[in-house]
Amino acid sequence: MRLLFKNGFIVNVFTGEIETQNVLIEDGLIIGVGNYGESDADEVHDITGKYICPGFIDGHIHIESTMLLPAELAKICIAHGTTAIVADPHEIANVCGADGIRFMLAASENIPMTVYIMLPSCVPATSFDEAGAVLEAEDLYSFYNSHRVLGLGELMNYPGVIEENEHVMRKIRDAHVAGKIVNGHAPMLTGRDLDKYISSGINDDHECSSIDEALERLRKGQWIMIREGTAARNLESLLPLFDEPYSHRCILVTDDKHPADIMENGHIDSIIRKASALGKSVITGIQMATIQAAQCFGLKGVGAIAPGYAANILVLDSLDKLQISEVYYYGSKVSENGEALYFDNPQISNDLGESVLSSFNMPILSADCFHITPEEGKCRTIGIVPGQLITEELLYDIDFSKNNGIDTERDILKIAVVERHHNTGHMGLGFIHGIGLKKGAIASSVSHDSHNLIIIGADEEDMSIAGNRVSEIGGGNVVVSGGKIIAEMQLPVAGLMSDLSAEMVAAQNEKIRECVYELGVYPEIKPFMNMAFVSLPVIPSLKMTTLGLVDVNNQKLVPLFTD
Amino acid sequence: MRLLFKNGFIVNVFTGEIETQNVLIEDGLIIGVGNYGESDADEVHDITGKYICPGFIDGHIHIESTMLLPAELAKICIAHGTTAIVADPHEIANVCGADGIRFMLAASENIPMTVYIMLPSCVPATSFDEAGAVLEAEDLYSFYNSHRVLGLGELMNYPGVIEENEHVMRKIRDAHVAGKIVNGHAPMLTGRDLDKYISSGINDDHECSSIDEALERLRKGQWIMIREGTAARNLESLLPLFDEPYSHRCILVTDDKHPADIMENGHIDSIIRKASALGKSVITGIQMATIQAAQCFGLKGVGAIAPGYAANILVLDSLDKLQISEVYYYGSKVSENGEALYFDNPQISNDLGESVLSSFNMPILSADCFHITPEEGKCRTIGIVPGQLITEELLYDIDFSKNNGIDTERDILKIAVVERHHNTGHMGLGFIHGIGLKKGAIASSVSHDSHNLIIIGADEEDMSIAGNRVSEIGGGNVVVSGGKIIAEMQLPVAGLMSDLSAEMVAAQNEKIRECVYELGVYPEIKPFMNMAFVSLPVIPSLKMTTLGLVDVNNQKLVPLFTD
Repeated sequence: MRLLFKNGFIVNVFTGEIETQNVLIEDGLIIGVGNYGESDADEVHDITGKYICPGFIDGHIHIESTMLLPAELAKICIAHGTTAIVADPHEIANVCGADGIRFMLAASENIPMTVYIMLPSCVPATSFDEAGAVLEAEDLYSFYNSHRVLGLGELMNYPGVIEENEHVMRKIRDAHVAGKIVNGHAPMLTGRDLDKYISSGINDDHECSSIDEALERLRKGQWIMIREGTAARNLESLLPLFDEPYSHRCILVTDDKHPADIMENGHIDSIIRKASALGKSVITGIQMATIQAAQCFGLKGVGAIAPGYAANILVLDSLDKLQISEVYYYGSKVSENGEALYFDNPQISNDLGESVLSSFNMPILSADCFHITPEEGKCRTIGIVPGQLITEELLYDIDFSKNNGIDTERDILKIAVVERHHNTGHMGLGFIHGIGLKKGAIASSVSHDSHNLIIIGADEEDMSIAGNRVSEIGGGNVVVSGGKIIAEMQLPVAGLMSDLSAEMVAAQNEKIRECVYELGVYPEIKPFMNMAFVSLPVIPSLKMTTLGLVDVNNQKLVPLFTD
Repeated sequence: MRLLFKNGFIVNVFTGEIETQNVLIEDGLIIGVGNYGESDADEVHDITGKYICPGFIDGHIHIESTMLLPAELAKICIAHGTTAIVADPHEIANVCGADGIRFMLAASENIPMTVYIMLPSCVPATSFDEAGAVLEAEDLYSFYNSHRVLGLGELMNYPGVIEENEHVMRKIRDAHVAGKIVNGHAPMLTGRDLDKYISSGINDDHECSSIDEALERLRKGQWIMIREGTAARNLESLLPLFDEPYSHRCILVTDDKHPADIMENGHIDSIIRKASALGKSVITGIQMATIQAAQCFGLKGVGAIAPGYAANILVLDSLDKLQISEVYYYGSKVSENGEALYFDNPQISNDLGESVLSSFNMPILSADCFHITPEEGKCRTIGIVPGQLITEELLYDIDFSKNNGIDTERDILKIAVVERHHNTGHMGLGFIHGIGLKKGAIASSVSHDSHNLIIIGADEEDMSIAGNRVSEIGGGNVVVSGGKIIAEMQLPVAGLMSDLSAEMVAAQNEKIRECVYELGVYPEIKPFMNMAFVSLPVIPSLKMTTLGLVDVNNQKLVPLFTD
């Protein structure tokens, strides 16, 4: 079946020019760009006055962070013109190990959006992390046989690279030997340390939050992934990268983006629109999101409207406004007017399904579990910084005589991180400031990167109820007040993902949001988002793990009480 | 051993910026670019006021056309800043088959210039060619295991691609499956045929002689190799490619360049200097010759001054004039002030040496062999076009009563192409116009692409002497006059390459030139160059093969006499 796109304007991503040519498609591939006519085709699609450009590629995304299965995510992404994503299944791998990677490959097979996979490089993230699995080089390398596996995922363990840790270096070497790339993740690294990190063959970075940081990396040969997600937004800071001589070494990524945000504002398309609103060229944005993303990853035959390329094509009603009216994936229409067309969800084998659906293994909690025995000295308290993932270390005099230290007047809540993979009974316990909860408790199985059970509460009984409920439903987000579950979102897939549609997940999320704000959480705080990063001991300054508080800057466990 | 380049200006090929940074090198690699000091290094090289840039990459060259072994070629190339070449050993493969490829790999091992190999795709070039070997896909694919083999060489058989010839398609598929690229060669192809050719996954083209031809290919996704060699010179026609939005999709190549030309004018550096003299940016030229060449071939870790990259570094006394004072290859100085430093030539195994040194296998010739029995009609005569590889078909009334048709007054000479690989006794015989020889004969074993023995003469006895001498010395160029050999260049390696230095080859070549011009050859003719292409039945219009005359446009053998 030959399909002809006739009378459109083509965005040529190799040159940035607009061409007036017809495009001929057969068997999912573009076979001609030029003076083709109706007699060449079985079907003719007259797009007079419209533009066509290649489908967008999100160069770095964590599917788990959308709480959607790949197929459900695809439905909302393709509606916004994304025909490929590069996903690092780091979260599910921390819970389910290699089975998690296998699951994500299987759950993204034969859907109308290509899901490339980067192998999680740092499972567990740190030695403080009690994750569900440990992934060594020998657990990973056989995955490189998959053509959808493009390399080793964001190498957060930059100290390991700089110190030439043999386990880390072997993972890098395996990727390179397989002809694959290694994604970087080294915020704030500069100078000599950065040189050493890059020297090991790290392709790119998506953590640049300042133009100076980005330019140092770009000049040293890394591709810059301009990240604009739901939480982390670097586009405005990095806007000068849209100009030459920098733009051709940059691509666009979302990293973490919530379903409601995607549905409402868009995906990669929204980054391009925002850059355009800030005065930059739409065509430059399209180039970043297409051919340059392909180049960054060494992908051949995707990311351009050219002979031999995949017929992943967007029809645009307007180029300036990037209004996407139709999306074609390998020559088949998969979305129209912002609505994905129906497709069958992938089948998952029973073994793999079982592995990801039964990830919780922990004791039942009681209110007593959260009791802290007072000692001399101030308490190291985690201080939330609104809008950021970093936390402050605060020192508080805690009055244990009332509520065992919980003091909603001073916004001092209890926080617990409970090991939930191997039933060790390990639990870190302490205080947190900056959330604003006046009563009740919230609990979640989404807590980077080990995804243990995290509970924050103004009431120990409610904390136990919330925590037990998350365990009972195999993972999720739960809000409890006055002994009652008042909202929840079930995330049965590894405790990270729902099996529902984006619309339902967004609706559940909205309900939960309403409930937590009613319980007193400050409007500027996104409690589940903040909570999810409070246990990640690679982002400064003070974090809570199953083993207790971690001083991130010094990379050591510290006691709750200080002299 | 750590070497520091201090106080230089760095040409950053990622951005085109000039940076004032120090560069630290260890174990052949650049390990740091920045604020490094003397205490970081064992050796400090103060290059105050000088520039450094990455070593140049010639993206397409036939080593055999230089008549030098790879090591000898390296000596004159590195002196001009070329630290890597991508060579298609198409010529030696036509003579020696897979042994020829093996020989070129062995003969370029561990020399101070990286020789990447593209596998010859079209051996023999056409069905009219009686080459020394036939290379099928199964003869080639195991070579892809070599990291120096980057893909399938220039795919001249574009009709085979367009018609989806199964042998051709298998060769392409093998290259792609191995993760390698396929070089193009499709002059004048346009529109639908070009789309089909490119659709099969052809990476680039080096045959563009007009800007329109180049732009069509570039817009359709091919890399454009701007060729500027000794004979074929496309730089001036393609000069607009040095501007955006085109320059970043272009690289520089020489294709065929003679040793004297390299020694006198330079190699890739001379292309950049010429572009600069024509008003284009030296930095753009450097980018084409370095990082872009690496990108075109998917090479990692070469072509930039950046951490983790090979320390292939040029020290420039002047950027504007591209004056190269020192050349470093993997951190070792290999050339200084235009002179390569000493290195050991590679050792070749006896078997491989034997295979390439004994390539001649043909009968002894006598003057009678060149006798033509007259028939009715005019004679199809090859008409040389000065400065070009194409020929015209001329129709002459030949007077066979004198000298069996040779008529130096009308510049009608005899031409013979003698099969010399398998002793078949096949010989094509006819007439040629436009050389100017007044007496004697010239003979050569360099005759594209099959490299049979080609002889042009004003005297049949001299033709036999010249031909027999070429056979006797195992290949070469020979000039005979009055029954005596008056000049010769021995090319014992497959009849294509000398085992002498570039200086000696150039001197021999000069001697031969003097002799042939004394014999009457027109000043505007390069007789051995023209002769070498007179037997190539893929370039229009009329060519001579061992099977007789070929009408190239109609791709058929035609008789000498026409109605």
